[in-house]
Amino acid sequence: MKKIDKMSPKEVRALIRTGEWQKSTAGFALGYAQANLVILPGQYAFDFLLYCQRNPKPCPLLEVLEPGKYITEFLAASADVTTDIPLYNVYKRGRLAATIQNVEDLWQDDFVTFLLGCSYSFEEALMKVKIPVRHIEEGRNVPMYITNIPCKPAGIFRGPMVVSMRPVPEALVVKAVQVTSRYAAVHGGPVHIGNPAKIGIRNLHKPDFGDSVTIKTGEVPVFWACGVTPQAAVMEAKPDICITHAPGHMFISDILNEELASQ
Amino acid sequence: MKKIDKMSPKEVRALIRTGEWQKSTAGFALGYAQANLVILPGQYAFDFLLYCQRNPKPCPLLEVLEPGKYITEFLAASADVTTDIPLYNVYKRGRLAATIQNVEDLWQDDFVTFLLGCSYSFEEALMKVKIPVRHIEEGRNVPMYITNIPCKPAGIFRGPMVVSMRPVPEALVVKAVQVTSRYAAVHGGPVHIGNPAKIGIRNLHKPDFGDSVTIKTGEVPVFWACGVTPQAAVMEAKPDICITHAPGHMFISDILNEELASQ
Repeated sequence: MKKIDKMSPKEVRALIRTGEWQKSTAGFALGYAQANLVILPGQYAFDFLLYCQRNPKPCPLLEVLEPGKYITEFLAASADVTTDIPLYNVYKRGRLAATIQNVEDLWQDDFVTFLLGCSYSFEEALMKVKIPVRHIEEGRNVPMYITNIPCKPAGIFRGPMVVSMRPVPEALVVKAVQVTSRYAAVHGGPVHIGNPAKIGIRNLHKPDFGDSVTIKTGEVPVFWACGVTPQAAVMEAKPDICITHAPGHMFISDILNEELASQ
Repeated sequence: MKKIDKMSPKEVRALIRTGEWQKSTAGFALGYAQANLVILPGQYAFDFLLYCQRNPKPCPLLEVLEPGKYITEFLAASADVTTDIPLYNVYKRGRLAATIQNVEDLWQDDFVTFLLGCSYSFEEALMKVKIPVRHIEEGRNVPMYITNIPCKPAGIFRGPMVVSMRPVPEALVVKAVQVTSRYAAVHGGPVHIGNPAKIGIRNLHKPDFGDSVTIKTGEVPVFWACGVTPQAAVMEAKPDICITHAPGHMFISDILNEELASQ
């Protein structure tokens, strides 16, 4: 068998589909974009699509399937969103009801599937230009914080923006803005540089999600919009049912991260 | 009374609302973005929103109002989409049924309003860097062509991309790409440079919409995605009712064109 980081996205999805791989997708099919998953019943689909349209930085849509469709068209040829993700979370009325390996049996004809860009794509771009990504260096999850930046509500969906933080050496902050701004389809440029208090973060060492990371002397905290934002909005809205990927267990697309960069 | 090109967007909208101005908005409130209007009944709203999400170059959404809402929130403070546009086209089952000055009486509680970016914004940017915009120089409408570039269908909405063409001196083609690429929210960079036949255009001097313009020796035809694309898709889908702005009679926003540029 090929090494897993050398496999094509299609090969990895096949392993996942047959249940041979049920763990995190971090480090898989390197270079290819991974995506967050949100599946909602049709009655919530317009509101959620509008929420994403109004808040593109935290909710960068890569593909939306039509009601009832579970085979992707654009991000991958013929991937099945009910089987091709290693682990799913099923929420009922905003509470985690199950964590399971496939959701074929839960499928409803009115389900609408949303696949959203994730920060893995721009982290690859940062590392390519030698900007350190601390949580990867330290083998932790990225620290994430609930801010005082309001998202634009849409229908039943609302809530504050959640951001991720990466400490960047002062001399590389401009470069970090430039590099990530090219990736508008996957959160884009930062939403804030420098002062956590300004965006409602009291203590950088106590993130609301993920892990604390080391901030070295001469490093500036840089904050990017985070894909937890729409997940938190969905949980808060308490739809009858919602299916998401389990954290770190993502959809692997056939699209190169580089293809998501503008120009 | 102030000269009309010096008026603020709010002042112009007030003139339009009271019926004092019922003509084209070209040259009004210079520097501010103008927007195309599409109003559809709720049953078509998800499909149309998805069509725009899948085809952002021809269908750049600037604001979508929630079902039943007719007051804008983001593009302008408290503009009324039923009165603040000088002239409306009302289509029934894909055929023009009326051209009227306000649509208050036609309003339905399930109507969803879409405001889309228009090329006026990037034409201002082209002229600022001294790239000629021929149809403006010649006092004509921009030439537009139906291409062989398919849009991604969504629900009942489908059709080819319609493009606008501007002849650009060879030496300025790169600049034209760079300048317009910054305006992703209003069609962005060109979709094709140079060879009309390649995108299914037989005769540049016989546009499908608008007027033919002069192409001088040493000029290259450059093609941008055009806002007629979604309008054509809507006409083809034949919804019970659809309301749009009449050509050239646009919604004037409080947003500067420059604010729509990335970074």
